[in-house]
Amino acid sequence: MIQFASRMNNLKGSAIRALLALANRPEVLSFAGGMPAPELFPIDKIKAATDAVLDEQGKVALQYSSTDGFKHFREQIAARMEAKNGIKTSADNILITSGSQQGLDYSARVFVDPGDVIIIESPSYLGALNAFKACEPNFIAIPTDDDGMIMEELEKVLATTERVKMIYVIPDFQNPSGRTWPLERRQKFMEIVNKYEIPVIEDNPYGELRYEGENMPALKSMDTKGLVVFLGTFSKILAPGYRLGWVCAEGEILKKYNFMAQAAALQASTEAQLVVSKFIDMYDLDEHVNTIKDCYRKRRDVMVQTMEREFPPEAKFTHPNGGLFAWVELPDYINTNEMAKICMERNVAYVPGDGFFPDEGHNNCIRLNYSCMSEEKIEKGMTILGQVMKEEIAKHKG
Amino acid sequence: MIQFASRMNNLKGSAIRALLALANRPEVLSFAGGMPAPELFPIDKIKAATDAVLDEQGKVALQYSSTDGFKHFREQIAARMEAKNGIKTSADNILITSGSQQGLDYSARVFVDPGDVIIIESPSYLGALNAFKACEPNFIAIPTDDDGMIMEELEKVLATTERVKMIYVIPDFQNPSGRTWPLERRQKFMEIVNKYEIPVIEDNPYGELRYEGENMPALKSMDTKGLVVFLGTFSKILAPGYRLGWVCAEGEILKKYNFMAQAAALQASTEAQLVVSKFIDMYDLDEHVNTIKDCYRKRRDVMVQTMEREFPPEAKFTHPNGGLFAWVELPDYINTNEMAKICMERNVAYVPGDGFFPDEGHNNCIRLNYSCMSEEKIEKGMTILGQVMKEEIAKHKG
Repeated sequence: MIQFASRMNNLKGSAIRALLALANRPEVLSFAGGMPAPELFPIDKIKAATDAVLDEQGKVALQYSSTDGFKHFREQIAARMEAKNGIKTSADNILITSGSQQGLDYSARVFVDPGDVIIIESPSYLGALNAFKACEPNFIAIPTDDDGMIMEELEKVLATTERVKMIYVIPDFQNPSGRTWPLERRQKFMEIVNKYEIPVIEDNPYGELRYEGENMPALKSMDTKGLVVFLGTFSKILAPGYRLGWVCAEGEILKKYNFMAQAAALQASTEAQLVVSKFIDMYDLDEHVNTIKDCYRKRRDVMVQTMEREFPPEAKFTHPNGGLFAWVELPDYINTNEMAKICMERNVAYVPGDGFFPDEGHNNCIRLNYSCMSEEKIEKGMTILGQVMKEEIAKHKG
Repeated sequence: MIQFASRMNNLKGSAIRALLALANRPEVLSFAGGMPAPELFPIDKIKAATDAVLDEQGKVALQYSSTDGFKHFREQIAARMEAKNGIKTSADNILITSGSQQGLDYSARVFVDPGDVIIIESPSYLGALNAFKACEPNFIAIPTDDDGMIMEELEKVLATTERVKMIYVIPDFQNPSGRTWPLERRQKFMEIVNKYEIPVIEDNPYGELRYEGENMPALKSMDTKGLVVFLGTFSKILAPGYRLGWVCAEGEILKKYNFMAQAAALQASTEAQLVVSKFIDMYDLDEHVNTIKDCYRKRRDVMVQTMEREFPPEAKFTHPNGGLFAWVELPDYINTNEMAKICMERNVAYVPGDGFFPDEGHNNCIRLNYSCMSEEKIEKGMTILGQVMKEEIAKHKG
């Protein structure tokens, strides 16, 4: 009888990934994934960048390379973080990872022993919860409002809880809620964190995808004590297929991430690093991000407008200013896992909200993605979804 | 004061990687790495395969994909395992990983809780020990002879040890020793393993690189109880820069690896999978492997011949039939860490052997790599190394 490690009791197949398998049929209007629009991938430019890399430095591109990543690539990332997130940093503070999921995995492994506490937002990113669970933590989910994590609740928990080893937040266009923390809340958060000196994982995959308003400074840009670990990724601004992300942190913390990376993976893809780096040298990544933003802004508009028109008044939903997701809360008597099956019969897919909470319950929420369906399909899908909601509510009201 | 997880006490920078940084200077004759010869990378063919992938399925290549990996790619791997390792398997039993280092990491995480026992060969691959250490195991290293792990010693340990959760072995051209287990020892091993029902991690990065004699069947090919997890990689037969490896296992075990992969990384690179898969479709990978073998065979010959001619009689070394490494044992009074510094002054680098043992001591060994230096440089380097050995031995004999 084979015995597995106790951490494996915590890991199950992700509900999203199982659902996505079903939602993959071409006739399904899927709002379930978090995938970028593939029609926007700059394939020809990537091909030119790849050819240039293989022509100019093929032997390097196909060989092993260092754990931390190519220096020039890390310099490009550092420059981008300053321009986009207000973070003054350097290549020396960056570690390249195989997607930011790996950064999430390393984060828990660097900081968390079994039974330690990880503080998260309620709700929080399902993939992060899944990564963290492998370290057998206890989660404490802090309530949120339209401006993100509620600071009074955070402080209450920190004042009364032992063994808090890290705080995980997504302050910009959060997955799943689409919400963004305003400046004052960021400042208050850093004040609290500096007082308690708890490491913070600031996950920022969507920060550059802002459709209106002004960019917020990253928590990392206000970090005076080296407590914030910033996770970035090329998945949403260029292409997820390369699995390229990064960790930005200081001193002893970054050193531990490097040790973890060396043990767990040796390094991220040499070829992928050089191709993306070359792309940034040859082309204007900002211009490409603007193309993405223009497309997603319209899709977001159509989704929000259709939800306003077609959803029943009982459905409350967020109006995201950026990112890929909107979040819907239905009356408690609606079970969105059950409703997902009904929707799937009508070829509409979404992610039920319960997976975004570490505890049971929360069966009345929905995460909707608007980045990879056309405006027409979004309108059609939201109309069907609104119709199903109305029918389910009517059933209850009998 | 930031607290790190207790596993981080186990992880230090790898001695090899630190040494390689020094050995990177062009004037150094380096036998320290485990790198393939970059001049053999089939750059033009890889470029053609990449162009075909981006032309034909660019949107797929740059998008997210499934955790287990592309089915066609897994089918190609399954066919290759049958042809090369005598393993009858299918795509359903394969999980694609980002290099087989990730397979090593997942292995310990799937099976090992802190304080559990991992059985290894003495010596064993340093990178595996480093990956496993993140799970805080106790290692038991089984003595080896020229035919690999000594089965009587293994059985003695299994009969008397609690909490053995996995056995890690490299039966083909082992890293670091270059040794290969003969058939009888493989059969005996499987007999013992079937009796105790302990999961086995069979790491096989070098099996295809045989320079003489006949291929041995993999342990996995003799596995009647689904106990063997086979780790394969494209790093040594094609290119390490893509970070592509795989896990072959059955049933509940493979399921756990998939859960672990989903939590830790989501998936391996979509693009890399499609490019390597396309390369295999377009070209003859066997032919390429033959080119590699022809080159490494000659380099191995020059290394062994020069060692025979130039090393002092006190130095005992292996005569590998394949793979990338030879292993040297010197008298106990020689400290190969100290000697490495002297060699580095003369621009010759190797890896001191102590890192390949989980316990202290073992300071009299050396791992030598012959895959990425020219025959001329190998002859020159081994001559200098022999000279330094003689000087060090003479100092002792005073």
